[in-house]
Amino acid sequence: MPRLFDAEAFKKRLNEDADRVTGALDDLLPAQHGPEKKLMQAVRYVALLGGKRVRPFLTLHTASLFGVDPGCAMRAAAAIEMVHCYSLVHDDLPAMDDDDLRRGQPTCHIQFDEATAILAGDTLLTQAFEVLAEADTHQDPAVRIELVKALAQSSGAKGMVGGQMMDLVAPEHEFEISEIARLQRMKTGALIDFACMSGAILGKASKSARQHIHGFSHDLGLAFQIADDLLDVLGTEEEVGKRTGKDQEQGKATFVSLMGVDGAREQALRLRDQAIEHLVSFEEKADHLRDMAHFVVNRVS
Amino acid sequence: MPRLFDAEAFKKRLNEDADRVTGALDDLLPAQHGPEKKLMQAVRYVALLGGKRVRPFLTLHTASLFGVDPGCAMRAAAAIEMVHCYSLVHDDLPAMDDDDLRRGQPTCHIQFDEATAILAGDTLLTQAFEVLAEADTHQDPAVRIELVKALAQSSGAKGMVGGQMMDLVAPEHEFEISEIARLQRMKTGALIDFACMSGAILGKASKSARQHIHGFSHDLGLAFQIADDLLDVLGTEEEVGKRTGKDQEQGKATFVSLMGVDGAREQALRLRDQAIEHLVSFEEKADHLRDMAHFVVNRVS
Repeated sequence: MPRLFDAEAFKKRLNEDADRVTGALDDLLPAQHGPEKKLMQAVRYVALLGGKRVRPFLTLHTASLFGVDPGCAMRAAAAIEMVHCYSLVHDDLPAMDDDDLRRGQPTCHIQFDEATAILAGDTLLTQAFEVLAEADTHQDPAVRIELVKALAQSSGAKGMVGGQMMDLVAPEHEFEISEIARLQRMKTGALIDFACMSGAILGKASKSARQHIHGFSHDLGLAFQIADDLLDVLGTEEEVGKRTGKDQEQGKATFVSLMGVDGAREQALRLRDQAIEHLVSFEEKADHLRDMAHFVVNRVS
Repeated sequence: MPRLFDAEAFKKRLNEDADRVTGALDDLLPAQHGPEKKLMQAVRYVALLGGKRVRPFLTLHTASLFGVDPGCAMRAAAAIEMVHCYSLVHDDLPAMDDDDLRRGQPTCHIQFDEATAILAGDTLLTQAFEVLAEADTHQDPAVRIELVKALAQSSGAKGMVGGQMMDLVAPEHEFEISEIARLQRMKTGALIDFACMSGAILGKASKSARQHIHGFSHDLGLAFQIADDLLDVLGTEEEVGKRTGKDQEQGKATFVSLMGVDGAREQALRLRDQAIEHLVSFEEKADHLRDMAHFVVNRVS
């Protein structure tokens, strides 16, 4: 009999983990003194503001499948969240998406200023690599360098930043569904994949275990993005914590504009089930990851 | 008898090395296809435009002191130049220094647009870490992770980006000479230090050899910055390839505003001699590094 998804229990778990991630970020982002202290104020404003911490959750619970030391996993999780936060700060800039609101609060360039926001993003990206490179993340340098390389690949031109560039030029293009899928695989999928794979890397997981994790993260990432597109159409600013209706306003092709609300919802459900199937071999140890797949899609179903 | 500095021979050498660095960057920054290709066009525009490639030169010739494979040294050199280029692109943005001209050409956000320039900078920074993390940079993962950590430290909040933040708030502050020195140690000194240290790291240099290299790079970095401040006052836009007279216009304290032209020039000469003294133990193998110290100060003496 399939396990039931207990949404309330999961949300409690997610919140508890998110608080621990915020605590780790607080430790790893020291305050700065002197005339440049505004930089770390901005960095800490962005990183400690909260959020669901979906990516760190994935790292922590993938790592636990492979018996990784929780302190090591938390450092990798925090590094990935730094990269996610950097991408939000730069995406929100006036020259990019020009957003004033994020997680229900003023975005970094509104709260501080544009120059500070650019540098705060730069700092978060750099700090993520520093955290991964430090010996406390894993005693084996080969593991740490594998993390660094995978993070760089997932967040660079062939990953997140490349996807953001596609997104920027999207209004000038008539994207087909395969191109939208590619855009999203790069823009959000690559970092979600790394969030999961980092647990497997830390745990020196076997090749077949890595393939299962990769299959899970691939489907989860797409489901996540479709849910996000649906929220942009169906959610209110208050519920979502950021401006909604943007995609349509900008004339951007999304999963929803191409598949319709019902089609997108069905696709998200299908991807959720597929994602969960990849976890079979991990048995009940992967329940938290299964719950995440339910949670992502539950927001819109 | 002290060796004479042959400026013409050195410039020829510097240009030849710079061409090889540009070739390496060309190899390491592959073109991109699809709708996002503008991103790599911008990245390549910025990275292949030229420049003296001072930091790569330092890496290459420090590495040769320790018998490092030239191919490995070139990869580290290219990674450092990527970080330098990223910092220029972001510094030139309208929200920052708002510069239209760099190396005599339109800056990235003028040639492309602001959003593309932000992402091009992000890409260059990320790519630098990827290059360092790849096995071709050094067979020993412990060496590669040491490079990654040192690059992150020198370019993050306690290094280059922190210095840039200090520079941004400088017009609101009455900096003393010690604060200007700290600003410059962070803003330009840290990456110059890493450029030199990366050669020592790749060569697994002894602790005492590293101390000599660090002493050299510290003094060279300050001399370099004082020379830059002098050029901002004394040079023309045409000679320098970028807008001059900016510091004074913005009311920023610099070595020149605090020490006067003659005082700054004398200090630069003193630092040059000090830098060269640190190289004694390397004998004639360090002649290229000695020449660089002469070259930096010769521009303004």
